[in-house]
Amino acid sequence: MLWAKALFEPESVAVVGSTSPGKLGYVLIEQLLAGGFRRVAAVGPKGQGALGVPGFRSIAEVPEAPDLVVVASPADTVASVIEDAGRAGAKVAVVLTAGFSEVGRKAEEQALLEAARGSGIRLVGPNCAGIVNTRTHLFPTLETRPPSGDVAFVSQSGALGGAVLSWAEEQGVGFSKFVSYGNGADLTDVDFLDVLRADDETRVVALYVETVSDGRAFLDAAARLAAVKPLVVIKSGRSQSGVRAALSHTGSLAGSDAVYDAALRQCGAIRVAGIEEMFDLCRGFTTLPPVRGRRLVIVTNSGGPGVLAADAADAAGLEMAAPSEALRARLRASPHLSGLGSLANPIDLTVQGTEDGYREALVAALDEADAALAIDVNTPYIDAAPIARGVVAAARATGKPVAACFMAGKTVATGLPILKEGGVPNFATGERAVHVISRIAAWTARAEALCASADDTVLAEMAQRAPHGARFAVRSAWSTTGMQPEEQRLPWSGEGLEPDVLDWLEGEGISTPRRRLVTSANEAGDAVSALGGSIVLKVVASGISHKTDVGGVVLDVRTETAARDAFERLQGVGGKGFRGVLAAPMVRDGVELLVGLSRDPQFGPVVAVGLGGVYAEVLRDVSLRVAPVDAAEALVMLGELRGAAILRGARGAAPRDLDASARLIADVSRLPFRYIDLAELDLNPVFLLEDGLVVGDARVVRRDASATRERGGSR
Amino acid sequence: MLWAKALFEPESVAVVGSTSPGKLGYVLIEQLLAGGFRRVAAVGPKGQGALGVPGFRSIAEVPEAPDLVVVASPADTVASVIEDAGRAGAKVAVVLTAGFSEVGRKAEEQALLEAARGSGIRLVGPNCAGIVNTRTHLFPTLETRPPSGDVAFVSQSGALGGAVLSWAEEQGVGFSKFVSYGNGADLTDVDFLDVLRADDETRVVALYVETVSDGRAFLDAAARLAAVKPLVVIKSGRSQSGVRAALSHTGSLAGSDAVYDAALRQCGAIRVAGIEEMFDLCRGFTTLPPVRGRRLVIVTNSGGPGVLAADAADAAGLEMAAPSEALRARLRASPHLSGLGSLANPIDLTVQGTEDGYREALVAALDEADAALAIDVNTPYIDAAPIARGVVAAARATGKPVAACFMAGKTVATGLPILKEGGVPNFATGERAVHVISRIAAWTARAEALCASADDTVLAEMAQRAPHGARFAVRSAWSTTGMQPEEQRLPWSGEGLEPDVLDWLEGEGISTPRRRLVTSANEAGDAVSALGGSIVLKVVASGISHKTDVGGVVLDVRTETAARDAFERLQGVGGKGFRGVLAAPMVRDGVELLVGLSRDPQFGPVVAVGLGGVYAEVLRDVSLRVAPVDAAEALVMLGELRGAAILRGARGAAPRDLDASARLIADVSRLPFRYIDLAELDLNPVFLLEDGLVVGDARVVRRDASATRERGGSR
Repeated sequence: MLWAKALFEPESVAVVGSTSPGKLGYVLIEQLLAGGFRRVAAVGPKGQGALGVPGFRSIAEVPEAPDLVVVASPADTVASVIEDAGRAGAKVAVVLTAGFSEVGRKAEEQALLEAARGSGIRLVGPNCAGIVNTRTHLFPTLETRPPSGDVAFVSQSGALGGAVLSWAEEQGVGFSKFVSYGNGADLTDVDFLDVLRADDETRVVALYVETVSDGRAFLDAAARLAAVKPLVVIKSGRSQSGVRAALSHTGSLAGSDAVYDAALRQCGAIRVAGIEEMFDLCRGFTTLPPVRGRRLVIVTNSGGPGVLAADAADAAGLEMAAPSEALRARLRASPHLSGLGSLANPIDLTVQGTEDGYREALVAALDEADAALAIDVNTPYIDAAPIARGVVAAARATGKPVAACFMAGKTVATGLPILKEGGVPNFATGERAVHVISRIAAWTARAEALCASADDTVLAEMAQRAPHGARFAVRSAWSTTGMQPEEQRLPWSGEGLEPDVLDWLEGEGISTPRRRLVTSANEAGDAVSALGGSIVLKVVASGISHKTDVGGVVLDVRTETAARDAFERLQGVGGKGFRGVLAAPMVRDGVELLVGLSRDPQFGPVVAVGLGGVYAEVLRDVSLRVAPVDAAEALVMLGELRGAAILRGARGAAPRDLDASARLIADVSRLPFRYIDLAELDLNPVFLLEDGLVVGDARVVRRDASATRERGGSR
Repeated sequence: MLWAKALFEPESVAVVGSTSPGKLGYVLIEQLLAGGFRRVAAVGPKGQGALGVPGFRSIAEVPEAPDLVVVASPADTVASVIEDAGRAGAKVAVVLTAGFSEVGRKAEEQALLEAARGSGIRLVGPNCAGIVNTRTHLFPTLETRPPSGDVAFVSQSGALGGAVLSWAEEQGVGFSKFVSYGNGADLTDVDFLDVLRADDETRVVALYVETVSDGRAFLDAAARLAAVKPLVVIKSGRSQSGVRAALSHTGSLAGSDAVYDAALRQCGAIRVAGIEEMFDLCRGFTTLPPVRGRRLVIVTNSGGPGVLAADAADAAGLEMAAPSEALRARLRASPHLSGLGSLANPIDLTVQGTEDGYREALVAALDEADAALAIDVNTPYIDAAPIARGVVAAARATGKPVAACFMAGKTVATGLPILKEGGVPNFATGERAVHVISRIAAWTARAEALCASADDTVLAEMAQRAPHGARFAVRSAWSTTGMQPEEQRLPWSGEGLEPDVLDWLEGEGISTPRRRLVTSANEAGDAVSALGGSIVLKVVASGISHKTDVGGVVLDVRTETAARDAFERLQGVGGKGFRGVLAAPMVRDGVELLVGLSRDPQFGPVVAVGLGGVYAEVLRDVSLRVAPVDAAEALVMLGELRGAAILRGARGAAPRDLDASARLIADVSRLPFRYIDLAELDLNPVFLLEDGLVVGDARVVRRDASATRERGGSR
């Protein structure tokens, strides 16, 4: 990508904007020079330079054509600046100038984009905070120049990006590259993810995003990146979920934040709640080796913080196994560990813990654990330096992941530089360290699973270049390649009533119940014996969507008389819209599921499964995926439910036919790619039996197929 | 309390232990002198002084009898040191010396306690890290001398206490008092809570505890304290929950950590997850005025961090209402706010936000909000000082709670001292600030509810002395005063089968179903019409506890033939232990609850309610309380269930008889105080109807009443 090289490794840069002291152009030049970049030209109406940088009235006058143009001139000048830049041969422009779509001036932003396209220039911004490449000493930004390191940070918000850069040194995290893309008129999240995936100076990518540019394209780019290096994402705007009015159960359960959550997990990104967690993870990923397993040992010189960290480990799903008898014997035999108070896990060295004690305890314990946390609760009368040396020595000797929590304040000041030098990340609390270890373990497990299908060359390259990565091509499970929509339409006109929907599902190969649409009391009476002796009767009427809410369902009808009575009653319920009564066999002992579809404005079709009946809605125990999914992924979804044990046969009940439900979920997940007017679908309840399943009810919400297709929709 | 005065305000102190340089006695003297305390004597076998402090061979030789003796001499000397101290007239001893019960030497600790009791001395420790009283400049501890302030910190763990003291300055929290009570042989959590409740220099109490000394006494003391000032508690050991083998559903749901969680909420304590959250809350509580409502406004100069904080506010149950039209007009009219980008909430001042802009936006917005968060995302080219001044001015002008999040690092260094001086707490992230505001709002709401029943004098005193408090006497809902156990025993011998348990419950005034114990197929047949046409038949047999797990329940039997067949089948299931079959009317459309009792080793009887059937166990949707509770508290428990909407009539279903279930919970919660051999009780399912309820099944686990009663049990 030419633009990427011009953006991050330009031969020369032109800054466009006022260069009077204190103005943006001046500050940008100051930053570029202070960072160490020299080949800069200043372009402004007065043609004055600044700080020894030569000045020109237009880009055309600059003797050496700039690769990169940084624009801070007034909004109404930017389009023509871009055209000038294109004529002068520039490849890319970073536009800091604000006053475009973010204040409602969409036409001006469109004009800017067209100017760029017409000039062969790619745009970062407008309304952005600039970019950074620490290796080329390139800092065209108003923000703090961050320390260099292995993390690339991409931020939709300029100010948040700036805050992260300012905080980096204190947090012990360095950056390879930084990009703020602001309004994202041209280049956006997807473009930068692709560039950073291939960037060998970047080992971890962090991303702050408010709205992705294109859901499916983002998923594809994120998955490609997350296959080779960790992608840590802050997605804000959780509380805006649920704003969208939803017509179906599935729609209301699949609030937009829940879909983001599912989508990010699906593509292998690691979602974090905020900046502190992002820093913690970046520090962990850039410092620690892979965590190949979930067994954690904690070595501490104080019980209390050890127990707090152990609690966190338990909550994070790490295993805190007790040392084996052999390990205990080994620990007891060490001259540095004699008199050890506790030989459980955490291993409590007590206040007597020494450099040798930490080293030997950690080295021995890591024989039986996959990762370690070393806690030093210091007093003013303990020197933290030898303890830090012991921890570092153990990390080096074992090659296993060792994190530290040295507490607190000035009392540990002598130890921290030793940890840093020794590649042992230190965290503010043991709980935070444990959280990071757990997330790296999850990342490593996923990477190893992906690697299992990669070939040896790839693995060798990966081992060399991306210690945490799984450098190979991912097949996107949600890819719709080869699934060109046939643009079919749902086979009924008007409202889809239950019999219509069931007939359609049956035609799609989905298991539906035996049933009869009856239109008289006598037919209803006949249905009892015809359908097996105990039946359910449901009103079929236009305008009645949630039948149970209006008394439109009669369960367990066993006699002809009862069936006839029920028919009369349901006819009354149906009123003017009455079309008949649907009779089906009563299902007993089914575990109720909800399986549904909705369309998300960002990610397109989404499939959901939850415990059915009233529980899905009240308990919100639902698993989501961007559609389509295959049956294997559907099984994973079922396993994510809090109530999964019910499906597996809790308390002596028979296990349910999970394969049948997984097939149903997979089949359903492909429907929206065939039926262009299918907006939402609820199968609720689905009765899951020991053998097979029965769809108890089905509802469809149709959309106007002539309307604009949603972004990232059925392509 | 004499001992408390001697402990925290001694006229003079004797330090017992070796005073050779570097030894504990020496360091303690060094600390006392450095802190500013002068009236110190050194007592050691060599009788040498240190650092100008006179030395003696025994306490008896010290001319001025010490009020407080600080002991760091070897473990086997401590008991006789205490006896000497008692003879010399000392009131209290702080024993730092380790090597007692924490290493299994329980007899030695008991001997120490007896020496203290025999000598009229109260003990802090042994194995503790000392105490601090910043006002009297008293620092008999090896730990960092903390800054002074309004927080008292009580720690069971010495080392964790030390870490907190070391971290305090960096975290901006100061301490009035600090106590580490170590093994707690004599004085323990309950004693210190009572002292600190009455301590006017302490506005907030923080407590780290691994195991409370006596569950019910702790609850009483914590409730008394939490009625007048905030009590922030770290309780570690979560992951040890579930270790205890449980015989009933209720027992397994009420793992010991869940009981701690319920108990701490019940007494009004604020449980936090770790040290960082503790510091955040202490800083908030000591700096902010009460938060009287849940409406939050966020004023920011950057969108991204504002949205992250708004997400956190939503998750914490704070309301982020949009500004009214009047407020919008007022904001627009301000010369400092013209051109405001966003007039939503967060109010985004953009990078143009000035001192005047922050002040005016905050002052205006606080007309419609109960609290505010001011976010400043600084760049190197913005001076944080004027922004801080604007925020402080708004806090002063409105008197309302205003928290800050100034980000990040060096770029905000000029603003932070202004915030601190102005009483505006600054937090590392907006999310953390919002969390603190939400917890203070919850605290304030509780305090105001408690105040509603207090008289004016009390309220006036409270307003003056405890801005966050509700200084009045709390009636402990779980108090068992006047509930002396009558020491009744369950009215059956051997195993309690369902008919026995139901008869007993009926005698206790608890609503039970109509039922017949039938012992022949013919009797079973007769039961169908006698009990209403549709019945359930359940095996009654010794050795069968979970009947559904073994096919011991037949539902919905409608004919005599079916009943006779079912009887034969259940007789087979019952095997040798068969005693009959219990017939009861089939219940339809009941919402299933579980109501149960267990006994917790720390807190004694615990009552639980959850969604019944298989769901309680799988979804663990259960609310717990230390028993007894009244019906009003039981209603609160029901409201805490995730599935509460099901009880209120979700999706068109009829609402259930919540009062009946609340009465049942309250009645059940009193049973363990009458029946000494009642260990656990499960009523599962309880069918909750539109009117009334039916107990579907009942199981009792009996205990050996001659066994030691649990701590904090039925007193």
